[in-house]
Amino acid sequence: MRVKKAVITAAGRAQRNLPMQTLFDQQGAERSVLSLVVREALSAGIDDICVVVWPGDEEPYAKLLSDDAARLTFVRQTEAQGYAHAIWCARGFVQDEPFLHFVGDHIYVSPESGGCARHLVETAVAEDCAISGVQITHESLLPRYGTVGGQQVPGKPGLYRVDKVLEKPTPTQAEQYLIVPGLRSAQYLCFYGMHVLTPAVFDILSVMLADTRDGRVSLSSALAVLAQREQYLALIQRGRRFDVGVKYGLFTAQLALALSGEDREEVLTELIKVLALREALSEHGANV
Amino acid sequence: MRVKKAVITAAGRAQRNLPMQTLFDQQGAERSVLSLVVREALSAGIDDICVVVWPGDEEPYAKLLSDDAARLTFVRQTEAQGYAHAIWCARGFVQDEPFLHFVGDHIYVSPESGGCARHLVETAVAEDCAISGVQITHESLLPRYGTVGGQQVPGKPGLYRVDKVLEKPTPTQAEQYLIVPGLRSAQYLCFYGMHVLTPAVFDILSVMLADTRDGRVSLSSALAVLAQREQYLALIQRGRRFDVGVKYGLFTAQLALALSGEDREEVLTELIKVLALREALSEHGANV
Repeated sequence: MRVKKAVITAAGRAQRNLPMQTLFDQQGAERSVLSLVVREALSAGIDDICVVVWPGDEEPYAKLLSDDAARLTFVRQTEAQGYAHAIWCARGFVQDEPFLHFVGDHIYVSPESGGCARHLVETAVAEDCAISGVQITHESLLPRYGTVGGQQVPGKPGLYRVDKVLEKPTPTQAEQYLIVPGLRSAQYLCFYGMHVLTPAVFDILSVMLADTRDGRVSLSSALAVLAQREQYLALIQRGRRFDVGVKYGLFTAQLALALSGEDREEVLTELIKVLALREALSEHGANV
Repeated sequence: MRVKKAVITAAGRAQRNLPMQTLFDQQGAERSVLSLVVREALSAGIDDICVVVWPGDEEPYAKLLSDDAARLTFVRQTEAQGYAHAIWCARGFVQDEPFLHFVGDHIYVSPESGGCARHLVETAVAEDCAISGVQITHESLLPRYGTVGGQQVPGKPGLYRVDKVLEKPTPTQAEQYLIVPGLRSAQYLCFYGMHVLTPAVFDILSVMLADTRDGRVSLSSALAVLAQREQYLALIQRGRRFDVGVKYGLFTAQLALALSGEDREEVLTELIKVLALREALSEHGANV
């Protein structure tokens, strides 16, 4: 298997200003969120990148990416039918190849050189199959994530063969179907928002989207079918992902990037200053 | 004196994406930088607001302000002649009235209800003259700021009558001309970036801009002349200003807003989490 294409979904209508927001990356360079996201794919050696957008966003988004050495294809999601449908919109771009996929509103911070996507792609290539990044997640957070069940691949720590996928399971469902041998109790493997998928997922989504009444299908339900059809793995990711679409998400992502990057000392100093300042605010003001 | 108009400068070409960046305000509402800036004027009871912009920015900026109950006038600065020239571009809007002025790339965080601008405007009205916000600033920071010299107004703590203004003075200049009785040694009164000005400043700027060879004039030099012509005060501001145009400026401003606002606990918790996380990054990844 070779992975030469990436699909990034960025059509969520509530978040269309998000790609324009800027952060300083681990090297201290100012970048838009969209550029940071695209560079995650580039760091995995993938420069043929499809961004699924809401109609009209092509031009401003292309402008944000003018400095990134990526071959960009914009695909429009013309109906607000959700996340899995957005991926499905990229089927013409992907054709019959495996592809890296992640969402446009997450920033990934990796302790490994080369980034989270690279590690995932390398494992997909080595194992020659679809693979999803996962993180060990406490039961209390299950309402937020797609969750997988399966068995560890012998001799390969952190790698699991998936046999079950449920979208935002209840604790009862999780206990019944998703317990993974080797994890501590009340811990599960939840999606990290990054996948290497095979084109089979488009066939599955086509059927599901044709069958659904409200036009909504979850990626998890499609991946549950995929797990029945072909080998499908999950890899524990050692990085962190930050949803920059939530309240204070950009702030938190900036903090995480800075603390794991070259400006760590500078930002820690700034932090302490502002924390100290707060207490001094009721005194006479002073430039510090 | 009544202050019914405000002039905000936002034409700096390096910072034209800055007004689009979003922050959560002290009440936890998501706002663009430009909206936060405009609301500083609104909080002072001023809704007749002129924004000096680089040509072409009127429409995107107007869109950012569509929810704010301000009467907006956009004035173009068509030549990159700097900050004082940008203010001068608003002379047709201001006409012969006093006006509040501050820059579009600073976020003000006030410990007082009603904000920094309100306190400054109220003092200008009470004293019936031009007034600049200042902060007590250590000598080492003089290269960054316009600095005033003068005498405390008897019986009014924090209020000074200005007789001298120098732009980014050297320590020698400061020691010679800008020592303010009552301040500790090596401390000076530096501009806070917020002023209530009289229309006389436009006459002064007109002469200076006509006389200059490189087209550059500092606001400080114009205010030095103003101080000779009419009563001109400085008020120590008890809030903080954050330059969001510098590296990590948005991050620091967000931190300051959150720590002095309703989401203080939430953001402190997030901070601790990310700080702790960093140390855990080399362990197996987990959703937390």
